[in-house]
Amino acid sequence: MCLRLDPRAGLTVRELTLVALPGIPEVEHGASLVELLRSAVERAGKTLESGDVLVVAQKIVSKAEGRSVRLAEVTPSARAFELAHIVEKDPRLVELMLHESRAVLRAKPGVLIVEHRLGFVMASAGIDQSNVAGGNGEETALLLPEDPDASARRIQEGVRNACGAVVGIVINDSFGRAWRNGVTGVAVGVAGIPALVDLRGRPDREGRPLRVTQVAAADELAAAASLLMGQSDEGCPVVLARGFPYARRASSIGELIRPRAEDMFR
Amino acid sequence: MCLRLDPRAGLTVRELTLVALPGIPEVEHGASLVELLRSAVERAGKTLESGDVLVVAQKIVSKAEGRSVRLAEVTPSARAFELAHIVEKDPRLVELMLHESRAVLRAKPGVLIVEHRLGFVMASAGIDQSNVAGGNGEETALLLPEDPDASARRIQEGVRNACGAVVGIVINDSFGRAWRNGVTGVAVGVAGIPALVDLRGRPDREGRPLRVTQVAAADELAAAASLLMGQSDEGCPVVLARGFPYARRASSIGELIRPRAEDMFR
Repeated sequence: MCLRLDPRAGLTVRELTLVALPGIPEVEHGASLVELLRSAVERAGKTLESGDVLVVAQKIVSKAEGRSVRLAEVTPSARAFELAHIVEKDPRLVELMLHESRAVLRAKPGVLIVEHRLGFVMASAGIDQSNVAGGNGEETALLLPEDPDASARRIQEGVRNACGAVVGIVINDSFGRAWRNGVTGVAVGVAGIPALVDLRGRPDREGRPLRVTQVAAADELAAAASLLMGQSDEGCPVVLARGFPYARRASSIGELIRPRAEDMFR
Repeated sequence: MCLRLDPRAGLTVRELTLVALPGIPEVEHGASLVELLRSAVERAGKTLESGDVLVVAQKIVSKAEGRSVRLAEVTPSARAFELAHIVEKDPRLVELMLHESRAVLRAKPGVLIVEHRLGFVMASAGIDQSNVAGGNGEETALLLPEDPDASARRIQEGVRNACGAVVGIVINDSFGRAWRNGVTGVAVGVAGIPALVDLRGRPDREGRPLRVTQVAAADELAAAASLLMGQSDEGCPVVLARGFPYARRASSIGELIRPRAEDMFR
């Protein structure tokens, strides 16, 4: 935690600082994310410290891992054609969405909500056509990383080897929500910081047990970083966060996924 | 926007800084939030600047506005008794939840999801029993502010008069979500910053229109602040945010509420 003693009152002031690292180039398959992060941190005039968290946009992780698919190579199934007609999307894209999903939850023109194979309930299985360099004008789609937690752990390990700092990693994406307009940043992969923080047992000011007991800390950090990443061509896909207030530990994104049996909105 | 020229590369570095203001006392009905904010900012050794955003926990806004209700004065209706049996809560609390709501969406032991009269789909109509000073050991419940946008505008106006700075205000609360575990901070009232930012029309790097077009910026900031506020007795109910990256404008929380007709998960 980033604590600073206030000289006037002797109070501790908690600060969280987020810095969007500029100048990150278009990421190609096989690019070293660690080298890219290292040089971006340096360019921003910063030094990584243990306890820092790097929030990395899913998009560049997927690109580096070669999760781009050429649509010309996709053959839609009959079910993909059927759904594509309902949702008014390219049948090849819908085929990829189905392939990445366990179940279709909702389908209407413009919208396909699925349960992703990783457990996320999300639109379009997270498959993105924008900002993907297809080369030769080819149409491509970008899938989520195969295993975003493993991606996060690899980046964490690589940063430790390259910079000597034990940082947390959050891979984030923008999800729509039920009931509320607009997307917000959410975590899809995590390493080194708790995805979910359990406050059960801590009493409130009057000594009553807390009503709110579990905080989706990785999602809150993902949202904070998303605010700085932007969505346009000036987007910064990496944010350095200093002052994450919860104790570090090994974690997995599964902590944030509500089991189907406990879910009331499918 | 908080832009800083990096002397090494000539690049601009976007920063967002969040500071949890310490030492805020228990808030009583009739307390001046503006005076409380002003002195908390000063205690933290900060000076408010135009463009800053103050994120204020719903709890202290409600307390200052006298939204605390003595449970002894609540007479549950037959419907409240019925629902209380299902959700295993105090019938007087359930009566208040019903009174604050337009519709009940889900009810099961421990959980009551409603559409709040302000349009939020949320648990327990945002009614909170923890951290409420009831005095004399009386049981009380704390309701959301009558009109959180109006509360936010009043605070904004008061801060302008007291400090000369035109700041944005977000009133935040912690909501559970569909599909994901844990609560995150969300905005329930807003003044001076856009609740929703529309990026439609901006092209991506390849010149394609953006797929993701509307960002719930106030929610992302509310989540960021929530990360610092904590939930325990050391909680800081006010966060000063510097570097919110979107243009200021008049706004309302209604921008974030998906119209019932467009909602697929009720």
